[in-house]
This record gives sequence, structure tokens and C-alpha cells, in this order.
Amino acid sequence: MTDTLISEVFQANMELVTRGLVLFTWGNVSGIDRATGRVVIKPSGVPYETMTERDMVTVDLDGNVIGGHLRPSSDTPTHLALYKAFPAIGGIVHTHSTHATAWAQAGLDIPCTGTTHADYFSRDIPCTRDMTEGEIRGEYEKETGHVIAEYFSAHAIDPVHVPGVLVKNHGPFAWGATPAEAVYHAVVLEEVARIAFITRTINPRATMNEALVKKHFLRKHGPGAYYGQSTC
Amino acid sequence: MTDTLISEVFQANMELVTRGLVLFTWGNVSGIDRATGRVVIKPSGVPYETMTERDMVTVDLDGNVIGGHLRPSSDTPTHLALYKAFPAIGGIVHTHSTHATAWAQAGLDIPCTGTTHADYFSRDIPCTRDMTEGEIRGEYEKETGHVIAEYFSAHAIDPVHVPGVLVKNHGPFAWGATPAEAVYHAVVLEEVARIAFITRTINPRATMNEALVKKHFLRKHGPGAYYGQSTC
Amino acid sequence: MTDTLISEVFQANMELVTRGLVLFTWGNVSGIDRATGRVVIKPSGVPYETMTERDMVTVDLDGNVIGGHLRPSSDTPTHLALYKAFPAIGGIVHTHSTHATAWAQAGLDIPCTGTTHADYFSRDIPCTRDMTEGEIRGEYEKETGHVIAEYFSAHAIDPVHVPGVLVKNHGPFAWGATPAEAVYHAVVLEEVARIAFITRTINPRATMNEALVKKHFLRKHGPGAYYGQSTC
Amino acid sequence: MTDTLISEVFQANMELVTRGLVLFTWGNVSGIDRATGRVVIKPSGVPYETMTERDMVTVDLDGNVIGGHLRPSSDTPTHLALYKAFPAIGGIVHTHSTHATAWAQAGLDIPCTGTTHADYFSRDIPCTRDMTEGEIRGEYEKETGHVIAEYFSAHAIDPVHVPGVLVKNHGPFAWGATPAEAVYHAVVLEEVARIAFITRTINPRATMNEALVKKHFLRKHGPGAYYGQSTC
Repeated sequence: MTDTLISEVFQANMELVTRGLVLFTWGNVSGIDRATGRVVIKPSGVPYETMTERDMVTVDLDGNVIGGHLRPSSDTPTHLALYKAFPAIGGIVHTHSTHATAWAQAGLDIPCTGTTHADYFSRDIPCTRDMTEGEIRGEYEKETGHVIAEYFSAHAIDPVHVPGVLVKNHGPFAWGATPAEAVYHAVVLEEVARIAFITRTINPRATMNEALVKKHFLRKHGPGAYYGQSTC
Repeated sequence: MTDTLISEVFQANMELVTRGLVLFTWGNVSGIDRATGRVVIKPSGVPYETMTERDMVTVDLDGNVIGGHLRPSSDTPTHLALYKAFPAIGGIVHTHSTHATAWAQAGLDIPCTGTTHADYFSRDIPCTRDMTEGEIRGEYEKETGHVIAEYFSAHAIDPVHVPGVLVKNHGPFAWGATPAEAVYHAVVLEEVARIAFITRTINPRATMNEALVKKHFLRKHGPGAYYGQSTC
Repeated sequence: MTDTLISEVFQANMELVTRGLVLFTWGNVSGIDRATGRVVIKPSGVPYETMTERDMVTVDLDGNVIGGHLRPSSDTPTHLALYKAFPAIGGIVHTHSTHATAWAQAGLDIPCTGTTHADYFSRDIPCTRDMTEGEIRGEYEKETGHVIAEYFSAHAIDPVHVPGVLVKNHGPFAWGATPAEAVYHAVVLEEVARIAFITRTINPRATMNEALVKKHFLRKHGPGAYYGQSTC
Repeated sequence: MTDTLISEVFQANMELVTRGLVLFTWGNVSGIDRATGRVVIKPSGVPYETMTERDMVTVDLDGNVIGGHLRPSSDTPTHLALYKAFPAIGGIVHTHSTHATAWAQAGLDIPCTGTTHADYFSRDIPCTRDMTEGEIRGEYEKETGHVIAEYFSAHAIDPVHVPGVLVKNHGPFAWGATPAEAVYHAVVLEEVARIAFITRTINPRATMNEALVKKHFLRKHGPGAYYGQSTC
């Protein structure tokens, strides 16, 4: 199982490049094997141009390296905190994609003003609170995960219905059932952020009817979904 | 005739990708054979990368599948409502292209402030009204078509002179005499929306002389048109 | 000589596509042989994908077709008016490039706020006045050229020092000693327009010291120029 | 050593093109051999398309040409002034990249509002003061270097911690330990400028906690750095 996971995580990392979401080494994807608790993640600071499947790093949920010859991404503790907080997810992506990062730097939720957004996210995409000086000076990357999890818990948000978040003054994290789906959601998040930037510049008071938000989200999710091909 | 139509609709769908108007599966093109009332349309949720001509779906004007092995686009009822309301059109496109979608999310008509716009659209490109909760919870996709048709009827607009519209909080629909012309108009609509965004950011009070709008539209359309090569 | 000119005009038209300045058929380049008064220009409405050197049209300065098998660009009278008004120029380009067109639609001069601008244009890039209803309903394309020439004459601007203009609610024209240089200036104009849009959005009160404008323009032009390689 | 340097400088110049930072000849990279004081730089006004390694020019720190068959970049005196003022740097880049140039034209520092910025620049990226008429009419390019150095000296900024600057109404300079690292920083500066433009348009009051700025900068720099692979 882990061999497949290593391959999936490697492919998902390369897809970030194909989709134009990363510059240099600014992004990483991980995936988890829930049966064993093993997590595969991109190595830290390795350029995508020369990276191979063999460079992927395997860690356990406490962050101990149990496979691979390189150091894991410095964001690994954030990924692990999210896997612990959100048991339903199987892959996580972090990028500094341009428009999502700009909303994170602006310190604002991405407002849901269109069906493109509502097809994937059941509400505004949240931006987390400022981290305290203690959190920043302490186990910073782990605390970043806690701040995300705290938001979803405090607002009773199902992370499957809102598969991404903005970390304030930093950038987006996205997730999904698999590493590939996490990348898919990271691409959607960037495009939604871009359209929202243009929308708000044209009309700062743009809003969307809540009934329409719910309609679009449920058209693609849940028992009454009717988008796509029947899979049974 | 239908075989040619299937090929035209398939090619027009692929042209959306070439022109950069779609991400993932976010768009669809249809075409109609007016003699028989058969409509060919993209299947729902099938990726463009692997889609072939054989995947196109044929339906009648009541939405019954009469050809093909897949489910038609979930937007099919919108297309059918438009074919019924606008007898002069032969192809329809729906996309979530970035700038047109932003104007739709802003809930504003795209103001005509330049000849690029007036060469193809004889007036502002309309944005439809909010849909009622009844319309959203009822036959939503069909009602989307009705809301478009209602606007054109209420404002006495000839859909041949305004070959596109913004559905509020959703995105653009465009049309033409053929599927290929519908895609052409969708590309124009996106570029016009992009230029209008920049125009209004530079100068929120930008306007255009009505005589110049009319001049440019009639330079390309109607009996006095003199743009392009003589076709007789 | 004309054979060379036809080839130059064709190559310059294709360069518009390579540089991303045109969508569909929205642009045209011409060149003039001053010895004979012959002007070569793109045909009207012919797609760049299939256009060949043989499709170029030759006209005299009164607009009579004297070579080629197609109709000349509908903008030909504007080109001819500019060749008559500006004896020093040898090539003209018209495009609907995105950012330059947006400034034209905004109805504003592109303010000179940087050396990128001042390296090529010795002052703000002018936007022409509204055309009268008489001009629009009369010989519209010829009057477009007259409105441009009127501006340069009224403001005593040397068209060699300001090799481009915005036609209000329409788009940019650019020119140069040759068709190739005209295209070069059209590319510069679009990039200058793009940077100016971002500049003014960041800081609506951005300005530039007049001494610095003059310094940069004269670094590349006139007897004291010292940019590039010595050509003697 | 100089042969290697010529090759490095040539490669770094070509990387500017690959990264989309230059249009036409609008950019240049240099490198210095600190042991001998020799500086290798791009020739003036030579197109990247046809430029070869043999076209690089070698000058001494007083600007005398000591190798190569072409004139050095007209910006050479700026490079030399920076090499003298900043002994720790080994490569310098100048571009007119779109968003960094827009901030320079706006006359504003790029505010640090995100970790993407803080990972490379320990504070706001400064924009220099207006140059005096005397500086502009005198040894303009050398004075440009002095104005940059003056800023860093007056504000006690270590140029290794802030590897770039905006020259007011002109554009960015960036530097690094090598020509390649200088280009890397020029790419970062452009992306940081782009994100900052979008951030400020979304929220003009966006700010960032100073503790977080310091955390990110020190995560990648100095004795406690833990990003990337261990190099011992």
C-alpha cells in the first residue's frame, strides 16, 4: 500500500507544477495510509525539476522519519496536525498560489459569491486568526495546524464540505480524500480566489443568495447529487 | 446531418480548452439540428483530456436521451430552454471563464465602453435577476433558461444582436448560428469582460457614445456591413 | 521594393500573433513605400492562422486597390490618413490589445510614471477626443485618422517622439520607421499600459519628475543617445 | 575563474527570459570575481534571442572594458556602485518586470504582508527617494547606485537580508551571492510584488505581525535555519 501511496504523492506534487500553482519549491503534497498511520510527503527544499519518486519521505504521525533518505518538508507538523484533527481526509496540499495567498495576506475569508465556489465549498473559505507570539516562537508549524483545526471545530465546519483554508499572512492549505483530490481542490481554491478578487474589485458589495449556495453544493455532494456520471 | 453535428459539437467543446476558457469539466457546448429537433451536447462531468466524439450525447427537445452511452450535461435543460426561446440560434456554450464569471458574481451588466464590445454585442451584456427560492428548489436548470429568455423578451432584445448573457452569481452563456460561432462569442465575451474590468478599475465613470456603439455593430452586421471579404 | 514591403508587412502581421497582441482578426499592420506612395496592408477579416504573404493587399494613398486579390482592412482609411499626416513614419499597427484598449475605453491618457514609458514615449500617451456624430456617420475610418492627426498637430507633438496613440472607446494605433518597428512600439505600448494600470491601482497619485522623463527619452534618442551598440 | 563567471553570467541572463522577467532587451545580469575585481555583464541593447556567451563584456570596477567585443550595458555604473557598496554580494540583476516596476512607479515600498515575502526579505522592500536634477543630469547611472546604497546605509539594512530594491519611477534591482541567486531573488521580488498588489487591492489595510516576519526569515536564514536539506 505504501508503495502506491509514494507514487500517488509524487504524482500529486508534480501536478502542482503542471497546474502552475508553485514557483521554485513553494509547495508540498502529502498522503496518508490510514490503516498504518504512515504519511508520505515531499522532502524539504528540493526542486521539482530534479525530484524523483525516491525522494519522497515517509513519517509516522508523530513525525519520526521511517522511510526515505531526505528531510521531510518543514511544513510536515502542520500536515500531521490536520490528519489527526480531520480523520476523513487522505491527502493535503500547501501552496503559495498567487490569489489565494493574496486573500490570506489580506486576512479575509474568500466570500462565496458564485456557483463555481459553491460547487466545492459549502460556505466562505475561512481565513484563520492571528497566531500568538507564543505559538509563533513555539512549535510553529504544529500550531499552524492547530489554529486551522480550532477554526473548523469552533465553527462546526465539516472539513469535507470545506476542503481548504487560508492561513493568515501565509497561504492556502487544501485537502481531499486522496492526494490527487487535494491537488484538485487546491486548483479550485486558486481559481475561486482569483474570480473573487475580480468580483470584489468590480463590486465590493457583491453577495449571493444562500439558497443558491446550498443548491449548488448539494448538486455535486450528498445523497441527491446528480452531477457527473452514475458510478453504480 | 446528425453525424456532422456530433463532430461539430465535439470540436467546439475541444476549442473551449484550446482557448483557455475551461478548467477541469467546467464548460459545455451543444448544437441543434433544427430540422429534426435533435440536440447534441457534452456528457456530464467527463474530463476533456479523455473525451472522444463517441461520448457526445444526443437528446430531443424534451430532454430524452436518444443517442450516446453517457448522461448529458447537468446544464442540458438550460440549453433546451434557450433553443426553444431563441429559434434563430444553432449552438450554445456555457463556461465559468474567469472575467465573465466575475461580472456575473458582481451581479452587474458588462457596460459597453468600447468598439471591441460593440463589434459583437449591440448593447450592455445583461446580467439576469436573482432567481427565486422556488425556481432554485424546483427545476433549477430549466428555470435558469427561463430567466435568461425572460430578460431578452422583457427588454425586446434580439438574441442574434446580443449573443451572450451573464447568469447572476453563476457565469456566462453564449450562442451563435453554429456551435463554432457560439464558442467564438464565448471567447469574445471573456475578453470583453476582462477589458471592461480593467477599464472600470481605471475609470469608474467610463462611458461610450451611443452613435459609436451603433456604428460599430452595424459595420459588421446587417445589410450595410462592410467588414471582412465579400461572400457573393 | 514592393515585394520586400509585402514580405515585411506579412511578417509584421504574424509578429502581432507571436507577441499575443491579437485575438482572432483584431489587428492589422501596414507599411508604405514612400518613393511610390504604395501602401501594403492586411486584408479585412482574414484569420491569421491561414493567411499567407499572397493575401496582402496593395493600395495607393487614395485607397484604390492596386495589388492583391482581397479587400483591404476596413481600417485602411485610418492608416492612409496617418501616412499623409506623418511623413516620417513607414509602418502602422492597429490592435485591440487588452490594457491599451482598456485605457482607450477609460478615455484617459496613459500617464508617464516610469522610465519604461519614457524610454520610448517622450510624454503621456494621448487619448483622442470623442468623435462627433457627423464624423461617425460620415467617412468614419478616415475621420479616425484625422482626429489622431489633429491631436498631434494641436499639441505640437512630433509623432516620432510619441509613436502611438489611443483612439477613445476604441484602441491603440502605433507606428515606426518600418512595419517591424511599428509592431515593436505596439508591444511596448501594451506593456506600458499594463504597468500603468497596476501603478495607478496601487497609487492613484503616482507621478514622475519631468527631468527624469527627459533623461530617459534622450538616453535612447537624438544626438546624445548612448544606449545600445554604436552603429557607425 | 573568469571563464566560469562569463558562463554563469550568460546563463543567468538567459534565465531571465525563461522566467518571463524581460521583454526585448529590458534587463541585465552581472557577476563579480571578488579576487580580481573583474565584473562580467550583458552587452547594451543586444537581443536575447541571438546573444551568445561570447557577447558578454568584462569591465573593471572603474568601468574600463577589459574583455569582450561589445559595449557593456548602459546600467553598468549602477552595478559597479552596488558592488562597491555591498561587499558581500556576487551577482546583480536589473529588470523591468511588470509588478515590481509598477510598485517602483507608484513610489511605494512593497509592504511585507506575508510569509512568501518574509522568507526572503526581512522587511518591506524599499523604494528609493526621488533623484535630484543634479543627479539625473550628472552621472545618472552611477548616482542611481549611490541612491540605493544611501538608503541601505541610512536605514542600517544588511543587503544580504534585503536582496532587492525598487528604484523610484524606474524598476527593481536584485542581488545575491552569485548571478544565479540574484536572478532567483528577482523572480521572488516580482511574485512578491504581484501578490502585494492583489493583497492591497483586496484590503488596503492589510498588515503582518512582526514576530511572524522574523520567524519566517530566520527559518531560512542564520544559525537556526531549518528549511531545506542539511548541507554538512
